Amino acid sequence: MYRAGIDLGGTNIKAGIIDGSQKIVAQTSAPTGAERPAEEVIADMAGLVKQLMETLKIDESALAGIGVGSPGLVDAEAGIVRYSNNISWENVALVRELGNYFSCEIRISNDANCAALGEVKAGAAKDVSNAILLTLGTGVGGGIILNGKVFEGSNAGGAELGHISMILGGEPCTCGRRGCVEAYASATALIRDAKRAAAADKKSLMNQMCGGKIENMNGKIPFDAALEGDQAAKEVVENYYTYLAEAIANYVNIFRPDVVLLSGGICNQGSRLTKSVEEHLSFLCFGGDRAFVPPVRCAILGNDAGIIGAANLIRKGN
Amino acid sequence: MYRAGIDLGGTNIKAGIIDGSQKIVAQTSAPTGAERPAEEVIADMAGLVKQLMETLKIDESALAGIGVGSPGLVDAEAGIVRYSNNISWENVALVRELGNYFSCEIRISNDANCAALGEVKAGAAKDVSNAILLTLGTGVGGGIILNGKVFEGSNAGGAELGHISMILGGEPCTCGRRGCVEAYASATALIRDAKRAAAADKKSLMNQMCGGKIENMNGKIPFDAALEGDQAAKEVVENYYTYLAEAIANYVNIFRPDVVLLSGGICNQGSRLTKSVEEHLSFLCFGGDRAFVPPVRCAILGNDAGIIGAANLIRKGN
Repeated sequence: MYRAGIDLGGTNIKAGIIDGSQKIVAQTSAPTGAERPAEEVIADMAGLVKQLMETLKIDESALAGIGVGSPGLVDAEAGIVRYSNNISWENVALVRELGNYFSCEIRISNDANCAALGEVKAGAAKDVSNAILLTLGTGVGGGIILNGKVFEGSNAGGAELGHISMILGGEPCTCGRRGCVEAYASATALIRDAKRAAAADKKSLMNQMCGGKIENMNGKIPFDAALEGDQAAKEVVENYYTYLAEAIANYVNIFRPDVVLLSGGICNQGSRLTKSVEEHLSFLCFGGDRAFVPPVRCAILGNDAGIIGAANLIRKGN
Repeated sequence: MYRAGIDLGGTNIKAGIIDGSQKIVAQTSAPTGAERPAEEVIADMAGLVKQLMETLKIDESALAGIGVGSPGLVDAEAGIVRYSNNISWENVALVRELGNYFSCEIRISNDANCAALGEVKAGAAKDVSNAILLTLGTGVGGGIILNGKVFEGSNAGGAELGHISMILGGEPCTCGRRGCVEAYASATALIRDAKRAAAADKKSLMNQMCGGKIENMNGKIPFDAALEGDQAAKEVVENYYTYLAEAIANYVNIFRPDVVLLSGGICNQGSRLTKSVEEHLSFLCFGGDRAFVPPVRCAILGNDAGIIGAANLIRKGN
């Protein structure tokens, strides 16, 4: 059996069909056009899947179901996107609406949950069945996989690993609270801290690397400057490792997953990032060496994780 | 069928037998004598259960199993207490050792997990099947119940809700880290903060309530003094609510339980405590009023929670 996965993003809708061995056998995408009514976006999602079915010359009898990863607050059980800032949706009955175009099973989840599931089924954590994934981008998304399945929480609005406060009263977070993991461990937060450090130390190499324009700061510059021995950049990077490790230790003390996965552009730092975080973790996790401290790995599937994970929301046909 | 539950504490071993309706039909206790070898303590645990069976005039064929709640880091799957500071145990194969005395099923878990399970099966959360419990005492213990079962984490050392850092680099915690929930929301932390506030403001009523000796401070005094309008006490109490609510909001953003339960002496404050925390929560939880914000309740079973919860680790005979 085949399964379809849709990764609904603020910019693009990506759709793919996977076979029984978790391989994407066809994929396509289209601009989201999030300014349009939700019905139109959903019609396009349906169109993409039908187009893929045509490419593969299969009909719905060969499709076990369609999974969708959506940004925002997703009520997986009810099949409703409660709220997404990214695509300006509020209470969109995605499963029902998409169901107008298909008779197969349709399931939805948050996009970070899908990315985590994809990596567990076919990526950096396919050797285990319990993993946590953090997407380190504009924000911090979190996905929790327990026994090979997405853990959504008992009611909608769980698994929001980016919105765990780690510094009470600290930096403002997009969620309205202060001090959340997202406000310290996102790429946005790293860039903010690098900008501040560069502004405070005019001699910092980071200023040069920005071409003298601090607004050109990106998430790579502090790492590059730190490698060159720049003190301000070293501090920014070391603080970032600390924030990330403290956040991960918190998740470990709750979930003790087999593996912790990181994704996003910061993962370009590879083992420099993961080894540094692992070093911190060995001191931070409850029980020290009396308990299992999971390894930290970078995700490997890139954009495919969302599609494969979404498809795996459908358990039939696996 | 009957089930036996043992609550192993630093001071006392409490044992009870419950019937099919979650009622404790016989119970007893003995001093732990934690300074003795573990084998002796375990022999006493077995003796207590056998004594209860005699009282009830039942033999082992009527006993579905025995559950034990132990302090410390418990490996429920392996049946081993990895480490407990309270009773000075390290790698004690509790299930195997206790199994020398019985042929029925034996299971173990952390004591806070058992308290949570007890409250869900027979106490303040018996109307739901997903709950989180925080024990606010010397430390902060946590129990997570998902679908009516204890959630241990994927490897031993999970569900340690007291050891989630909320103020990076803050107050030292017993776990070796800084800024954990335990270091701010335990009774110990409340008393520490009340002592500091009383010392800093000699006119604070809290000094009088201590009989002029700050070492007499307890967890009730700041609440009592705040009721009398004492400004320093009001601040201590308001900060305590904030710490507790920030911690709970973090758990809600991960688990979205149906109910959050609190236990420990601080619960004597009743609805004054729970209402204040609920007010904070409504602003802190991710998604605001677009998502379910669980009610906060005080546990009601007291010491019985540990026995009933431990017995419910045995699912047979329920």
